[in-house]
Amino acid sequence: MFKKTDELKVMRDPIHGYIHVEYQVIWDCINAREFQRLRRIHQLGGTFEVYHTAEHSRFAHSLGVYEITRRMVNEVSGLKELSEMDKVTVMVAALLHDLGHGPFSHAFEAITPVAHEEYTRRVILENTQIHQILSGVSEDFPEKVASIINYTHPNDLLNQIVSGQLDADRMDYLLRDAYFTGTSYGNFDLERILRTMRVKDQKIVMKESGIHSVEDYIMARYHMYWQVYYHPVTRSYEAILHALFQRMKDLAQTNPAVLKDLKMFLPFLKGEDTMQDHFRMDESAALYGFTLLSESEDAIARDLARRLLDRDLFEYKTIKCEEDLARIKKEVAALGYDPTYYVIHDEASQRPYKPYKSGEGHNIYILREDGSIKELSLVSDIVNAIVKGNLKEDKKAFYPIG
Amino acid sequence: MFKKTDELKVMRDPIHGYIHVEYQVIWDCINAREFQRLRRIHQLGGTFEVYHTAEHSRFAHSLGVYEITRRMVNEVSGLKELSEMDKVTVMVAALLHDLGHGPFSHAFEAITPVAHEEYTRRVILENTQIHQILSGVSEDFPEKVASIINYTHPNDLLNQIVSGQLDADRMDYLLRDAYFTGTSYGNFDLERILRTMRVKDQKIVMKESGIHSVEDYIMARYHMYWQVYYHPVTRSYEAILHALFQRMKDLAQTNPAVLKDLKMFLPFLKGEDTMQDHFRMDESAALYGFTLLSESEDAIARDLARRLLDRDLFEYKTIKCEEDLARIKKEVAALGYDPTYYVIHDEASQRPYKPYKSGEGHNIYILREDGSIKELSLVSDIVNAIVKGNLKEDKKAFYPIG
Amino acid sequence: MFKKTDELKVMRDPIHGYIHVEYQVIWDCINAREFQRLRRIHQLGGTFEVYHTAEHSRFAHSLGVYEITRRMVNEVSGLKELSEMDKVTVMVAALLHDLGHGPFSHAFEAITPVAHEEYTRRVILENTQIHQILSGVSEDFPEKVASIINYTHPNDLLNQIVSGQLDADRMDYLLRDAYFTGTSYGNFDLERILRTMRVKDQKIVMKESGIHSVEDYIMARYHMYWQVYYHPVTRSYEAILHALFQRMKDLAQTNPAVLKDLKMFLPFLKGEDTMQDHFRMDESAALYGFTLLSESEDAIARDLARRLLDRDLFEYKTIKCEEDLARIKKEVAALGYDPTYYVIHDEASQRPYKPYKSGEGHNIYILREDGSIKELSLVSDIVNAIVKGNLKEDKKAFYPIG
Amino acid sequence: MFKKTDELKVMRDPIHGYIHVEYQVIWDCINAREFQRLRRIHQLGGTFEVYHTAEHSRFAHSLGVYEITRRMVNEVSGLKELSEMDKVTVMVAALLHDLGHGPFSHAFEAITPVAHEEYTRRVILENTQIHQILSGVSEDFPEKVASIINYTHPNDLLNQIVSGQLDADRMDYLLRDAYFTGTSYGNFDLERILRTMRVKDQKIVMKESGIHSVEDYIMARYHMYWQVYYHPVTRSYEAILHALFQRMKDLAQTNPAVLKDLKMFLPFLKGEDTMQDHFRMDESAALYGFTLLSESEDAIARDLARRLLDRDLFEYKTIKCEEDLARIKKEVAALGYDPTYYVIHDEASQRPYKPYKSGEGHNIYILREDGSIKELSLVSDIVNAIVKGNLKEDKKAFYPIG
Repeated sequence: MFKKTDELKVMRDPIHGYIHVEYQVIWDCINAREFQRLRRIHQLGGTFEVYHTAEHSRFAHSLGVYEITRRMVNEVSGLKELSEMDKVTVMVAALLHDLGHGPFSHAFEAITPVAHEEYTRRVILENTQIHQILSGVSEDFPEKVASIINYTHPNDLLNQIVSGQLDADRMDYLLRDAYFTGTSYGNFDLERILRTMRVKDQKIVMKESGIHSVEDYIMARYHMYWQVYYHPVTRSYEAILHALFQRMKDLAQTNPAVLKDLKMFLPFLKGEDTMQDHFRMDESAALYGFTLLSESEDAIARDLARRLLDRDLFEYKTIKCEEDLARIKKEVAALGYDPTYYVIHDEASQRPYKPYKSGEGHNIYILREDGSIKELSLVSDIVNAIVKGNLKEDKKAFYPIG
Repeated sequence: MFKKTDELKVMRDPIHGYIHVEYQVIWDCINAREFQRLRRIHQLGGTFEVYHTAEHSRFAHSLGVYEITRRMVNEVSGLKELSEMDKVTVMVAALLHDLGHGPFSHAFEAITPVAHEEYTRRVILENTQIHQILSGVSEDFPEKVASIINYTHPNDLLNQIVSGQLDADRMDYLLRDAYFTGTSYGNFDLERILRTMRVKDQKIVMKESGIHSVEDYIMARYHMYWQVYYHPVTRSYEAILHALFQRMKDLAQTNPAVLKDLKMFLPFLKGEDTMQDHFRMDESAALYGFTLLSESEDAIARDLARRLLDRDLFEYKTIKCEEDLARIKKEVAALGYDPTYYVIHDEASQRPYKPYKSGEGHNIYILREDGSIKELSLVSDIVNAIVKGNLKEDKKAFYPIG
Repeated sequence: MFKKTDELKVMRDPIHGYIHVEYQVIWDCINAREFQRLRRIHQLGGTFEVYHTAEHSRFAHSLGVYEITRRMVNEVSGLKELSEMDKVTVMVAALLHDLGHGPFSHAFEAITPVAHEEYTRRVILENTQIHQILSGVSEDFPEKVASIINYTHPNDLLNQIVSGQLDADRMDYLLRDAYFTGTSYGNFDLERILRTMRVKDQKIVMKESGIHSVEDYIMARYHMYWQVYYHPVTRSYEAILHALFQRMKDLAQTNPAVLKDLKMFLPFLKGEDTMQDHFRMDESAALYGFTLLSESEDAIARDLARRLLDRDLFEYKTIKCEEDLARIKKEVAALGYDPTYYVIHDEASQRPYKPYKSGEGHNIYILREDGSIKELSLVSDIVNAIVKGNLKEDKKAFYPIG
Repeated sequence: MFKKTDELKVMRDPIHGYIHVEYQVIWDCINAREFQRLRRIHQLGGTFEVYHTAEHSRFAHSLGVYEITRRMVNEVSGLKELSEMDKVTVMVAALLHDLGHGPFSHAFEAITPVAHEEYTRRVILENTQIHQILSGVSEDFPEKVASIINYTHPNDLLNQIVSGQLDADRMDYLLRDAYFTGTSYGNFDLERILRTMRVKDQKIVMKESGIHSVEDYIMARYHMYWQVYYHPVTRSYEAILHALFQRMKDLAQTNPAVLKDLKMFLPFLKGEDTMQDHFRMDESAALYGFTLLSESEDAIARDLARRLLDRDLFEYKTIKCEEDLARIKKEVAALGYDPTYYVIHDEASQRPYKPYKSGEGHNIYILREDGSIKELSLVSDIVNAIVKGNLKEDKKAFYPIG
């Protein structure tokens, strides 16, 4: 039913060797403008400020999530048996799941109340090249794809493939982010995970013989969070981004004239953004906007934008109680900085795996030799230890040194 | 004499493990705004359109060239003996050698008659943060650094380190581009090259026992040129860039009104660019400019800019004679395209190593066991074969399919 | 004081890039016959029966332990300050620490009551080429080297380098065994560990900023134990080895005539082995002995030897209680096999890190920013969880299928 | 028709990720004693004396050749269409092609006039476990397998897969030997070669778009020959092996009594070796034999054997003319050494690719876009240069220093 490409298309990729494309609809989505736009959005926001080679884009990551999904539906026993419609739907969803991201992702959400997941839905369902391509398959195809991204597809296996606790998204980003940061922490044995993955009772499960690869994957998550994603320098850059976006939002109320040249941000500040505004709003636009802001009349915007461009980041301190934060705010204010923008409080906490109570979410399940399935932490001593151990937390204040 | 940093500074790097910094002046240069700007310029121009992970910046490459230089002056017998002044000067020059690059490098030179080497000189010698840092060492230090980049430093060894035929620049980019494209072609044995490098008669030479690593390096160059740098898709992207810059230049004469919002390009189009204009002119600015151009009144600029953003590239054909090109121009014109912007002729040719006649340039020399030195192609059968073989050439026309 | 080699000697190594030798005494030890013998002993006993590329020798591993030690005493602040005598002594001890191993290591200890550590001591202190080389340094040098291997050197730092809980021995074998098995489990960031290692209060400690690399190293141990060292196929091979050695020992009492051609084993069976017998007793000798035994008159020895050569290994079952084992013995006996040699009970248990009560042994210590040191599990949530979690155990019986 | 295994069997392999087995006959061959014996034969003879980690066996290599063959007949368009009989036959032949190797391969041929290819034939066709397994398929199956190894199978494609100029054997050993020596020279892009391989006119050919990977493969061969296979230390070890085997052969005539304990060698020395003798004659037997010889009454055998065990190798000198060799013999004789065993002349020469005149052998062919095929050197400038350049040669004498 689905049209194939003339010949197998391949794209060289350091993580997967090649990305393989055999369906025309996948190929067309890759070539659509909204997908090409992802080349202009970094995968890891401000992480390149600490790992200078972490300059890879959401474009590459999206191809990777697609490729792992493609392998899952072709190689995993229990998924191989899905219908072609389900397979293509989930591959498309995997490819498109990050389409709605704005520049620097979460920080950008300071400027607009719309979450990136909602933008992804809109790009798929509204008037875009992507929508046109998906509609070409069938009238309800865009909605099918969107439902996987919303975790509401009636075939729950498809939802689990794209975002469970052992999903194509996480597996690609751990491997990819490890490669591009040049750290080894995110590595785990993808081949073995794919080889020991099965389906049981409509759940994606892991054979007990693959339990070590799963433990290793859990640890990869743990290390990547603390060494990369929550690295204080990454968070410092994002704290300044947050402050700058907040400043723009405040200026839009109090002194809109100073923002008049910042056409890329205005529709978002006014809450009037269209799909075309979203399309334009990539990291090039944001960075060029910062260049303009770094010459702005507003001293706060000017300073914060300059800090982002020149990597003149905030320092940080661990916060143990409310008083610590209050004291820092006072010191910073004493030096003439407005603490609203110059003291950013940020909490990071993470448990690399957490089993959900039944019904609440997706767990990792282990398929035992007797055919029964058990939640991972009940089988693995090491995961059990992690689940029962302390939750690792880190609260920090970011602010300029006086 | 040179101030050291408080402790050894290191930055994780996938090619070199770590970049090591022990001199304050190096650390200050890295933190200068003009150097941080290199994060916003891709190392490989349009190559990311074919190798989607080739998204690394000149920032990372510059650190790599510095690191190889640092190792050369610390590890290579004959270079270890350089004075501290010479060592620091050449490390700074290695770090800063690409400072003058504009967006998409060579294509950008269609817009401005100033070569990137000249901009590099200006950033070092004119009123910039970098200049201020270098002047802090001594009044003539900026000029010393610039002279290496110009190959005119009185100690010719320093010039050879940064750009000979086996220099820190080439060695870093081959390894780095191989890593980030995910190809294996650019790999060679850097460790062995450093271990067998020596100095003889004020020339950097290679011990005969390292000749295989040099042959391998020569082949790495050959493969990277044809598989990556001269890949037709890279050249297609750059052909469109060239055409778009040319179109802007022509519009600046014929219809300047349509360019009024393109403040980032105007100073260059008018030939009035300052150091601050150059600072602002990074790839974010260029790409945001293309976004504006993709909604321009001028149909040609609009179409070309859209092609760049959406990766709707030109097709290509090998050109064997003048008539081939003339025929294509005619066909393209017949379809309503202006051949000035829609037929781009591009010739690539390369010999991975070419010995210079004495006095003309730097050769690779082999140090024999008897202490004599001989030019590489006289010692290596395989390099000799390459030098005497045909020059590989490729002439192509790039144009839209009708 | 110590003689240097004419030039730096290097040996290519996939784990460390190169092994670097600059002291003549190290070079001479490497070239001594007792050290060359280690080429004929596998690093991983029977593991090659499950990971077919795990064919590397104790020779390569010993060079690796030396190389990590060399880097520690040259790069780690607090160790760099050791005297040349201490540095060379610990490097020699690192190189020689495995000299006493017999074929298939622990299994061989079924044949002789002498532990391999004791043989190592004897090779260093008795009449050997190694002893002669070490005595050439000074009369008491052999004893100094041996004391490190015994953990009794007065400078406790030296003992910790070779065998603490984060020592050169373990670090090399995890990385090396991961490489040669082709698994990724044993990887951890050696560079970062070396960079964040310090000395405090005569203890080797880790800066808090390196805690993630230590956690990763602990996990690498955990995974390598269960995926490689305790793999049931490895243990099955070793179970048969154990049974065969036991059988020979019993035959030496009951029917020595059948062993008359097995000259390589006889001195050990009689407890009369000399250093020369030990020298001869490498894995080539053992395997050739098995070839002879596979044609022996004794049916049990014949069958067991054939099984080792042809990889016709025992099956296995997890044992939960004494009754399980008794039942298997009965079944095996019923099939005509003597359970003494045909049912091998083996228990494996492991905790990847276990802090010792003070005074009992070496812990991993973390150096905090305030200069205090704390035992690892008190600082790392994840290691704390592991220390407090269940001890992973595995009890199996190995026996032929009926 | 061919029986499948119960489930897909896999074996972890660092070069190929996994070795995949789905046919019972393949699995049975792997488990046969004659195939398991290959674990006791090094892939690279004496190379471990220079690259200390080159300790991998012909067992691992044979699995690798099988795996590449398996991929070729499953993935390459033109080979995918082979009959199941042809596919299984060529996979078995690939697996078994090295079965006849004795210890240290070519050197061993000094002792016996039978080439290893002939032994391979005999193991397949005579009374062995392997023969029994193959006969179980059909009476003529052993002969079919043997005919591929002889290059005489009627379907010439099968012969080319196992040994053409771009065959599974060479591709595995270059990658594997590079990995286990720890050099990068042997690397090339196997994935791309498999992707661009086709069949045309009953020839295995390469699409023009894959020509760079072929050039890279040719260079990998060139480098591996000179850096690894023809390394003077490898050749020195093999020269002594050759001399020792020659000495034994001479002693068998002149003084057989001194060889009486060397039961492993006697049948070969007498030319009376059976398949069982061949089975026993692995490197463990040879090395244990050297241990015995190192305590022999014959001074020459004793010294040569000791040199092999203790790595006390011969020095070497490049020989330019007959006179050089004569002079060395004289010097060596003057020191009391018998030049017959103490001066070994060895010539190495190699051209990494050489096109055969039509009919003589297998060339590498390039499939052009117009569907025609051309021999590689007519299409590739760089290979053309190599083919026309000088033949690289190296003549050396190996002898003990006086």
